[in-house]
Amino acid sequence: MKRILVIGAGLSSSSLIEYLKKNAVREDWNIVVGDLSLELAQSKVEDCERATAIHFDVTNDIQRLNEVSRSDFVISMLPAHMHVKVASDCVGLRKHMVTASYVSPEMRELDEEAKKANVILMNEIGVDPGIDHLSAMRVLDEIRDAGGEIEAFETFTGGLVAPESDNNPWNYKFTWNPRNVVLAGQGIVKFIQEGCYKYIPYHRLFRRVEMLEIEGYGKFEGYANRDSLSYREIYNLQDVKTMYRGTLRRPGFCRAWNVFVQLGATNDSYVMENSETMTHREFINSFLLYNPSDSVELKLQHYLGIYQDDVALWEKLEWLGIFEDTPLGIPNATPAQALQCILEKKWKLDPGDKDMIVMLHKFIYQLDGKRYEINSSMVTKGENQVHTAMARTVGLPVAIVSRLILNETITTPGVHIPIYKEIYEPVLKELNENGIYFTEKKMEL
Amino acid sequence: MKRILVIGAGLSSSSLIEYLKKNAVREDWNIVVGDLSLELAQSKVEDCERATAIHFDVTNDIQRLNEVSRSDFVISMLPAHMHVKVASDCVGLRKHMVTASYVSPEMRELDEEAKKANVILMNEIGVDPGIDHLSAMRVLDEIRDAGGEIEAFETFTGGLVAPESDNNPWNYKFTWNPRNVVLAGQGIVKFIQEGCYKYIPYHRLFRRVEMLEIEGYGKFEGYANRDSLSYREIYNLQDVKTMYRGTLRRPGFCRAWNVFVQLGATNDSYVMENSETMTHREFINSFLLYNPSDSVELKLQHYLGIYQDDVALWEKLEWLGIFEDTPLGIPNATPAQALQCILEKKWKLDPGDKDMIVMLHKFIYQLDGKRYEINSSMVTKGENQVHTAMARTVGLPVAIVSRLILNETITTPGVHIPIYKEIYEPVLKELNENGIYFTEKKMEL
Repeated sequence: MKRILVIGAGLSSSSLIEYLKKNAVREDWNIVVGDLSLELAQSKVEDCERATAIHFDVTNDIQRLNEVSRSDFVISMLPAHMHVKVASDCVGLRKHMVTASYVSPEMRELDEEAKKANVILMNEIGVDPGIDHLSAMRVLDEIRDAGGEIEAFETFTGGLVAPESDNNPWNYKFTWNPRNVVLAGQGIVKFIQEGCYKYIPYHRLFRRVEMLEIEGYGKFEGYANRDSLSYREIYNLQDVKTMYRGTLRRPGFCRAWNVFVQLGATNDSYVMENSETMTHREFINSFLLYNPSDSVELKLQHYLGIYQDDVALWEKLEWLGIFEDTPLGIPNATPAQALQCILEKKWKLDPGDKDMIVMLHKFIYQLDGKRYEINSSMVTKGENQVHTAMARTVGLPVAIVSRLILNETITTPGVHIPIYKEIYEPVLKELNENGIYFTEKKMEL
Repeated sequence: MKRILVIGAGLSSSSLIEYLKKNAVREDWNIVVGDLSLELAQSKVEDCERATAIHFDVTNDIQRLNEVSRSDFVISMLPAHMHVKVASDCVGLRKHMVTASYVSPEMRELDEEAKKANVILMNEIGVDPGIDHLSAMRVLDEIRDAGGEIEAFETFTGGLVAPESDNNPWNYKFTWNPRNVVLAGQGIVKFIQEGCYKYIPYHRLFRRVEMLEIEGYGKFEGYANRDSLSYREIYNLQDVKTMYRGTLRRPGFCRAWNVFVQLGATNDSYVMENSETMTHREFINSFLLYNPSDSVELKLQHYLGIYQDDVALWEKLEWLGIFEDTPLGIPNATPAQALQCILEKKWKLDPGDKDMIVMLHKFIYQLDGKRYEINSSMVTKGENQVHTAMARTVGLPVAIVSRLILNETITTPGVHIPIYKEIYEPVLKELNENGIYFTEKKMEL
């Protein structure tokens, strides 16, 4: 019997733990779920004899070493910066480990040691990063295996609300960490297009969107992620002329969100004066010019050049309640924290609401003197508020790859991300069986 | 005979050292000028028996302690972050010290020790900070002494080119550190206006200028400095309704500079790909949308909404050569470094060119039921390329306050900035004798 230690029992672990429990008897697993909140861990194991919950504090060196050493396999669903301590123990104690997070420089440094210890440290096997790697590499390898030369690769992912639960003018609700949504895109965007390096500063990002369509799901817009350039090396696309990674929203979102960016309302670098007693309206006014007679609405329209009859934009702003005299009620807030507080009142999921994950890849390549485009897309909706699309697309790849390592289908030691055929093929196959699959469309150009 | 140690022999020390040399015999001073470049130090003392040059390395603890201990007085003209080691030695060895830099938190921490040791550490006694403190406090104290209540205080300073040397469409040349000019305003601007806290993000800063006029010198525009709020406490204006500090340029500068801000061309946080072989034109193009047929000029106009016939703006951009196929020639450049390289080719002072420092304060106050406005302005031009307006307005206040400490007119120990009558009165008087003076205009509102 193999003991699997799952660290972290939050929303992103729900579908992962469900999968492990379902397969526990057949695979002869014992599952231990550890979390700082014992109650939360218990809620995830309650109905399963093969699973137990423990209070677990990753910063407690003795407990961590003890639990890792008693286990055969470790899955860390902690925040990204907390993985390394666990990974280091895993290498020392010769246990394989899986995470859904980006490989940090510290994690990367464990590669040689892991190889020597014959230990697999598998990372970036959630949805984004994760399913994007798996699905992109399958198509890229197919094209290359056939002798094709890849010119352009663009890829987009979005965590959205399902159409049946989409009932507000933004066509958006928080389906994951609201703070990350408010801060998204800050910094500098770098990509390459037709061989030209391009840079977009944050304050222009939401006005440089690309319109996209997925059959059966309508239109989307994509804005660029920060660093597309480093993916050339990861995907072995050093000579590709266009490499672009982006985030999906419904059309109109970015133009309205840009209002907050232009105001400076997403800034997280300073604390505002008197935020506790400040109202929504005063919050917006603090970014506008002083004027003894004009209304906040008029000043905002004037400042950002918004036409009075731009209904599509204006109804989004009004619907959020940003002009209301409601107090924020949070002390020492940064603008980003204040804005998040306003948004959370409106962009929350109602009971019964479902989320939706959308992924879209565009490949352009030459083969035998002809040019082709392949569009590969995946849309999946949440089952309920526990097994959300986000929880399933993060948790299932983690669970599946864990099973493949435990049964020795995947065996290459070292620090890895899932870009190899031995990984993406079986994981994509099993995701397909779970309703998470890509639809491909190929056109000659 | 008193030994004065001047650390740093750069441009900002020229007028300072000149003053010390001129007064050396009368005051019985010996002047030692230390710099990392012995040659530079020598060039500043060559014609004076009372002055000697030494090679001086502030990071050499033994030399630093030795030189400070042999001196009676220390003037540090080093970059701001290098003062503290010297200041700490000065307190330990009981020597007074003067700097023109902002008081750092580390400097502030020496206050108690300095008081115990009966040592004066005088800072912020250049032009800005420096002359702004002196001249503002004089008027503020006068108003308050007469029983007036101050409603608003706005203050602007600019380092510009003198009208007789002003021969380019920007009405601007680099008269000081070019890097600081390129990075100016980055971060968040905070001020208070009519009792409302206002915040301006960097990407809006150069479109929120205030127009100003100084009799005999024409029009200027002012954009806000980063932190105006902390000056309420410094100037004892806790209840003031409007507090605004700004930087002066000639009209039209900010609107054109905003083009670079909008592009992201002033960003200093990342290194561009292939900057060594990149041309000016390619540099600008890297911030614009990809388009297989449109010119860089057309794309820029379209992207930033610049009208084709906006001659005032366009001639500035063309004059800088930003559309030319000239290679940058600097490896691993950030956008800010690349832009600085382009600007330095054009905004350099020609031989014979003179610079100009402009300062303007606006005070609004109530007295005996009436409202008044006082405008207080100072304009001073450089004498030549050594004794520039910048070197004189930085160096003379430092020199004068040093003399006042040396002859015990100023005696209060501790970490100080020049906001007290015992300091501003004699320093302003002697600046006046050197042609640096303020003109006041008072109006009833």
